[in-house]
Amino acid sequence: VDLEERILAANEARARHNREHFLSAGVLAVNVMGSPGSGKTAVLEGTARALRGSRRLLALAGDLTTDLDARRLEGAGIRSRSISTGSACHLDAEMVHHAVHDLALAGGDYLFIENVGNLVCPAVFDLGQAVNVVVLSVTEGPDKPLKYPVMFRKADAVLLAKADLLPALPGVRLEDYLDNLARVAPEPRVWPVAALTAGGLEPWIDWLETRRAELSGAWVAEGLEV
Amino acid sequence: VDLEERILAANEARARHNREHFLSAGVLAVNVMGSPGSGKTAVLEGTARALRGSRRLLALAGDLTTDLDARRLEGAGIRSRSISTGSACHLDAEMVHHAVHDLALAGGDYLFIENVGNLVCPAVFDLGQAVNVVVLSVTEGPDKPLKYPVMFRKADAVLLAKADLLPALPGVRLEDYLDNLARVAPEPRVWPVAALTAGGLEPWIDWLETRRAELSGAWVAEGLEV
Repeated sequence: VDLEERILAANEARARHNREHFLSAGVLAVNVMGSPGSGKTAVLEGTARALRGSRRLLALAGDLTTDLDARRLEGAGIRSRSISTGSACHLDAEMVHHAVHDLALAGGDYLFIENVGNLVCPAVFDLGQAVNVVVLSVTEGPDKPLKYPVMFRKADAVLLAKADLLPALPGVRLEDYLDNLARVAPEPRVWPVAALTAGGLEPWIDWLETRRAELSGAWVAEGLEV
Repeated sequence: VDLEERILAANEARARHNREHFLSAGVLAVNVMGSPGSGKTAVLEGTARALRGSRRLLALAGDLTTDLDARRLEGAGIRSRSISTGSACHLDAEMVHHAVHDLALAGGDYLFIENVGNLVCPAVFDLGQAVNVVVLSVTEGPDKPLKYPVMFRKADAVLLAKADLLPALPGVRLEDYLDNLARVAPEPRVWPVAALTAGGLEPWIDWLETRRAELSGAWVAEGLEV
């Protein structure tokens, strides 16, 4: 436990450094978390389509061994780097620090950090992000917020992905997801989305843009162009 | 890394003890792994229905904080105990050791150990099980074996769950799952199942019974009734 605390403290220090770096580069850093196959990459592909021509998107994609997600994101027009975690089940601030230096933030508006597919450990390792987003597929079952409360408590927004599949899931109701999210997070910000068909992404995009506008006050104070 | 090796070595020793305990109790211990919401509990509920009246089933259900799965398994007629891992993203042999003493193995035929929903860490912590099973939902996407190769390489069997949803998933083909599994595991044993509708469970049940029959030789050698 003592060792765990030391690891987390070292991570916090590095995350603070990343946060300053993101602030001075004028990018909104978004930590995107969720189960394997929840739809994280598809949400970012849809986000890239929606913001094409108006914002410059960057991404880091964390994975144990492949760069499949980074290549999908590149294909969607997002300048991306893959982070191979080896056997680690989450990204940490040090990994992000290294990858960001390779990616180069200059000129970017958003930095999406797609974490390793996992509802446990990514929630406790700060990366220096401005906001946390959890992508939860409606195929996973509405008990997930209760079973992984730390993850959902830390979420600034939850995207209920693959919502177009709800009619194919007998007995699964959107209200049950909303009720269980409300039990672990006081004011959950939740939107059903169907990223593959670009359905329901508008509130999410609006929220991102609002968060970016909020941060721009800090960027102006730092003498940055927004 | 040195600490990690010491933790794993201590776990191995405890797992060997568990394995002897399962052997002398005459139960086949099955480590059931998979993403959150992949369908692990539903598969075990379906297995309980299929084996009702012929085999006595026991289960341990690992979860961060709730006993929701253990209660579902009890409802399906499986004598069950829940293991709360707190912040740990996987079960370890010590947790299983304690829970098994509380559960009491006497009279059981199968012990299903439902791991925490996670495709990374559960694969590297031996619990003393006789077989590893991975439940992968077809909604998760066919790239998962490539992205989480350690998990799928250690699997003695893979259940492709929620297979009845395939017609609702445009562009997702069963062959892609089978091809990618074959790329990481030399001879993957894979069955599509739809546990909620009891579809396709027969090959899985037959395989379990065969594994149990194989182990019975060892039980006979130990002087146990099979």
